Amino acid sequence: MTSTERAVNGRRYRLPRVPTVIVCIDGCEQDYVNQAVQAGVAPFFASLAAQGTVLAGDCAMPSFTNPNNLSIVTGVPPSVHGICGNYFFDPEQQAEVLMNDARYLRAPTVLAALAEAGSRVAVVTAKDKLRALLGHGLKGVCFSAEKADEATQAGHGIDDVLRRVGRPLPSVYSADLSEFVFAAGEMLLRTQRPDLMYLSTTDYIQHKFAPGTEGANAFYAMMDRYLAAMDGLGAVIGVTADHGMNAKTDALGRPNIVFLQDELDTAHPGATRVLLPITDPYVVHHGALGSYATVYLQDAARLAPVAASLRALPGVDEVLTRAEAAARFELPADRIGDLVVLAHRLTVLGTSASRHDLSGLTVPLRSHGGLSEQRVPLLFNRRLLPDDAARLRNFDVLHLALNRLA
Amino acid sequence: MTSTERAVNGRRYRLPRVPTVIVCIDGCEQDYVNQAVQAGVAPFFASLAAQGTVLAGDCAMPSFTNPNNLSIVTGVPPSVHGICGNYFFDPEQQAEVLMNDARYLRAPTVLAALAEAGSRVAVVTAKDKLRALLGHGLKGVCFSAEKADEATQAGHGIDDVLRRVGRPLPSVYSADLSEFVFAAGEMLLRTQRPDLMYLSTTDYIQHKFAPGTEGANAFYAMMDRYLAAMDGLGAVIGVTADHGMNAKTDALGRPNIVFLQDELDTAHPGATRVLLPITDPYVVHHGALGSYATVYLQDAARLAPVAASLRALPGVDEVLTRAEAAARFELPADRIGDLVVLAHRLTVLGTSASRHDLSGLTVPLRSHGGLSEQRVPLLFNRRLLPDDAARLRNFDVLHLALNRLA
Repeated sequence: MTSTERAVNGRRYRLPRVPTVIVCIDGCEQDYVNQAVQAGVAPFFASLAAQGTVLAGDCAMPSFTNPNNLSIVTGVPPSVHGICGNYFFDPEQQAEVLMNDARYLRAPTVLAALAEAGSRVAVVTAKDKLRALLGHGLKGVCFSAEKADEATQAGHGIDDVLRRVGRPLPSVYSADLSEFVFAAGEMLLRTQRPDLMYLSTTDYIQHKFAPGTEGANAFYAMMDRYLAAMDGLGAVIGVTADHGMNAKTDALGRPNIVFLQDELDTAHPGATRVLLPITDPYVVHHGALGSYATVYLQDAARLAPVAASLRALPGVDEVLTRAEAAARFELPADRIGDLVVLAHRLTVLGTSASRHDLSGLTVPLRSHGGLSEQRVPLLFNRRLLPDDAARLRNFDVLHLALNRLA
Repeated sequence: MTSTERAVNGRRYRLPRVPTVIVCIDGCEQDYVNQAVQAGVAPFFASLAAQGTVLAGDCAMPSFTNPNNLSIVTGVPPSVHGICGNYFFDPEQQAEVLMNDARYLRAPTVLAALAEAGSRVAVVTAKDKLRALLGHGLKGVCFSAEKADEATQAGHGIDDVLRRVGRPLPSVYSADLSEFVFAAGEMLLRTQRPDLMYLSTTDYIQHKFAPGTEGANAFYAMMDRYLAAMDGLGAVIGVTADHGMNAKTDALGRPNIVFLQDELDTAHPGATRVLLPITDPYVVHHGALGSYATVYLQDAARLAPVAASLRALPGVDEVLTRAEAAARFELPADRIGDLVVLAHRLTVLGTSASRHDLSGLTVPLRSHGGLSEQRVPLLFNRRLLPDDAARLRNFDVLHLALNRLA
């Protein structure tokens, strides 16, 4: 290994020689970009087909935000970095807890390793929930749009963010939250010119608007303008997503929900505990409803009958044992339940009807979590050398941007 | 059985006492209706949640037009009626031929049976390719919008159609073709008041426009106006679809195509013939590209290695043997190949690159054929009694509209 590269989690990364911006567009089903391009509002994205590189890859499963952001910044699947949901059952605490704390992270990030090697690194996230994980061990700038007003030099590597960005603190449920991430990224590129920057948005808009609709196109037009500006500042840009997004409703927009805990409590009283790893403190826009769930059993002997009950439910596509799910989806076996359940593209999985507050669903539910949201874009504003990977992943984005520039 | 019902293909149907209109909206992914309702342009559809019945069902596989239109009018899957594609390899002729001819139909239609029992029946299709199959054995009105100018009393049960409808002959590649179907339906309801009417549109618009975009919303607004008018005329209305529709492109709108014949010719020269049952005379808007293909082998001994090659292709989701596909999808085993191939939601299957003319794809490809397009709406403008079917199908629509009115 030369002094210009570093090995992280078994992969080698060249230190950036040109400012490199990696963007994770939360919930970026590929058709959002396509439809915005078709509508003529995304000229920068449109330019990538001719002047850059347009690929697609599979995200880590479950197709949720935290596992995938961590895969992107570590370059490895959840089986290695340990973050397999927003929420999990912690066997040490014997409790269901958020997986936001960096002590759950089992691998260093490429960001931290390159900063250690001398690269100047900056991270801006939309929601604060990701900041601690993404910034773990990082010597550099790391703050969230949500709590931009609380950033300090000592804690976040920067202060006075609102003034520097020139925008007020955005609401956590808004398109503004993501725009603030881009505005901060452009400000950093202009003022500090970090060698490596990671920008991660929120999917508030994608949960509400279908590809090609006005609300979605306006959001992608906004991102297109900032990306064009950063391109104009000479940055190498790589864009991917944590997961896609699909409608989860019937023809009248009513959610298709299978309440797994209710179903299992009827068929197998007291035998199971259903856990939804999508659960986090920000559930207003999706009601904690996604297309992936995990089920813990009180008694392992009940595995087969419980699995059979789950498989018989309309809207359930696949039921895997812990070992099967860990192997197929590269998940940490000690952090998932005895069974993993995947829903149909148009269906979400709930626990009990009484435990989901759907009052925030003011528009028809769109969500993610399943295999139907695994395919995401991998877009670059530079030509890349061909890569011999049989299957590209969203967490190859750092490798591609740093190692495969033509 | 009483004189007010008839048994057809093992199911009983009540003769309609109120004019009953069954509509098959070609390519009606449920989100088209939902987005049009959200946009406020589909008040009739919107009213169904409160005043009618909103269900969803699975279409017959492959999720193509002909197999599903025939399933809808026969009430049974392709294993019974025999139509498993637009196109197939006819072992008798030892040639690849269109399956448009009524001699391929193995079951009577409910339409013909109820006409025989005294109901006045009318059928209007968009494209003429379906007319012969849908009208097989039917004593009543049956014509296509495409060839409305050629309809005669002797051949179609009606003449002078353009004048009666008051619209010019529509282009086969247009939204007008489907509007003509609805306009003709409303005209028939006003002038002849048939007891049972089947209206079948074309998916030209859905192949071009995503749910919620202007082109799609305008099309659903048009249908909404005609459905409201027919509702106002007192008809019982049941709406379903032959299949859904998905984007089949990357983020820049370029089609994701796996050319199966090219791949197999490299791995197994001369061993296979790939057939695409989506093929029909009207391929401009989808280039004969769908997410379902069938593969014939010269030598049955090559089944396992050919299947393994297919399974290894990115974008291929499932490979089934003839027996597996016939059992799982209720297909006629003698009319499919040795293997059935299903593509990923965002991928289509081609034969050889040189055999597909993509020049007609003026907008990013949207298509169907796979399991990802199986879920379709089942909408009624009346309350229905609960049905005990574990799994509703689009070809339950006649049963529901005729037998389950509350």
